[in-house]
Amino acid sequence: MIGACRPIAGAFAWRWRIRMALAHKGLEYETVPVKFTDKEKIAFANTKLVPVLVDFGEVVSDSRAFAKYLDENYYQERPLLLGGGTRFVNQWCDMQLHPVLVKDIYDHVHPDDREYFRTSREQRLGKTIEEMHGERDKHEQELKRVLTVLRELLRGQPFVSGKAPAYADYIVFGAFQWARCISPFVFLDEADPIAGWRQRMCKLYGSLADSVPHYA
Amino acid sequence: MIGACRPIAGAFAWRWRIRMALAHKGLEYETVPVKFTDKEKIAFANTKLVPVLVDFGEVVSDSRAFAKYLDENYYQERPLLLGGGTRFVNQWCDMQLHPVLVKDIYDHVHPDDREYFRTSREQRLGKTIEEMHGERDKHEQELKRVLTVLRELLRGQPFVSGKAPAYADYIVFGAFQWARCISPFVFLDEADPIAGWRQRMCKLYGSLADSVPHYA
Repeated sequence: MIGACRPIAGAFAWRWRIRMALAHKGLEYETVPVKFTDKEKIAFANTKLVPVLVDFGEVVSDSRAFAKYLDENYYQERPLLLGGGTRFVNQWCDMQLHPVLVKDIYDHVHPDDREYFRTSREQRLGKTIEEMHGERDKHEQELKRVLTVLRELLRGQPFVSGKAPAYADYIVFGAFQWARCISPFVFLDEADPIAGWRQRMCKLYGSLADSVPHYA
Repeated sequence: MIGACRPIAGAFAWRWRIRMALAHKGLEYETVPVKFTDKEKIAFANTKLVPVLVDFGEVVSDSRAFAKYLDENYYQERPLLLGGGTRFVNQWCDMQLHPVLVKDIYDHVHPDDREYFRTSREQRLGKTIEEMHGERDKHEQELKRVLTVLRELLRGQPFVSGKAPAYADYIVFGAFQWARCISPFVFLDEADPIAGWRQRMCKLYGSLADSVPHYA
């Protein structure tokens, strides 16, 4: 394995995600340290990015491709390396996207559910639904800022999950679609990469998500 | 499928992540709407949480368990539902955790790499390394705040990936371990659930991460 660590301050600075991934799979390996400026050491792999994995003649560079290669070629009893990220996405959505919509949801729930919804949410959030709603301006700023991570990710790839959509996309899209169906609140500019992604999501599976009543 | 949508404002509010996941797998299904207060409709599944999936006698509740069940029982050519979340985790780490460490990294890189590191980072960040470092107080506040998502996630489960660690843990841990090896900067209180998680990570695989020189 080439360049999973760099010679730094007399020791090595490991690419720890890779070192842990190899330990996760229980694999043994040799390491060649590569300095930032040692590009010629990895030129054979047609890349400027470390780490480069050489495994029985197979060459893989880029950390994520590396993890994927390990999942596809080295099975063991531990969970798949790439199977666990959606819980984080879920937590991020719950904390960052949902609170801004609480009043709109309240306005749209079935009359039988109103009292239950109000009591359970106010207990969880520690304030009344109307107080939450009154703070929307604050949350709107916060929302624009917290969306930065999602925005930058989608600038570099068409879907949250990469080249094709998967559950991480559906989690985040769920929040946007929920918003679109029950709230007149608009929080995406058309030029926003997130808006383009939402469009792509709406067109999936025979425009499934476009087929329901929603706000503009 | 029971409770994947709620009767709201005369229409249905779908659990969109589930509807999209079923479409992703190309599956047909029947739906039973469940109000927030309709707990008795799902009591048979020993849960208060929708959606509840009934598939040839198998009963699965909770959205994530649902996605996992679909991945394990319904293969098709599209990617696994649960395989795509780590890209988001990666983006979150790059944007939220790494910038705070840039000066410490600079101080520790191999002398041959200093100039390259300074030029490339200053170009990317649009300011000098010293300017970045001067803003650390600001970033420290920011860092404490952005860690909230990670903290709340780890309050409910031992690892970022769930019951056992996987690549999402290794990505986030990489940033912390990098910090620990090259920076005297302390940003976790001992009582923080993130500190407990970091301890667990350090003990994995024969205390691999504890075995290298690091700051206290």
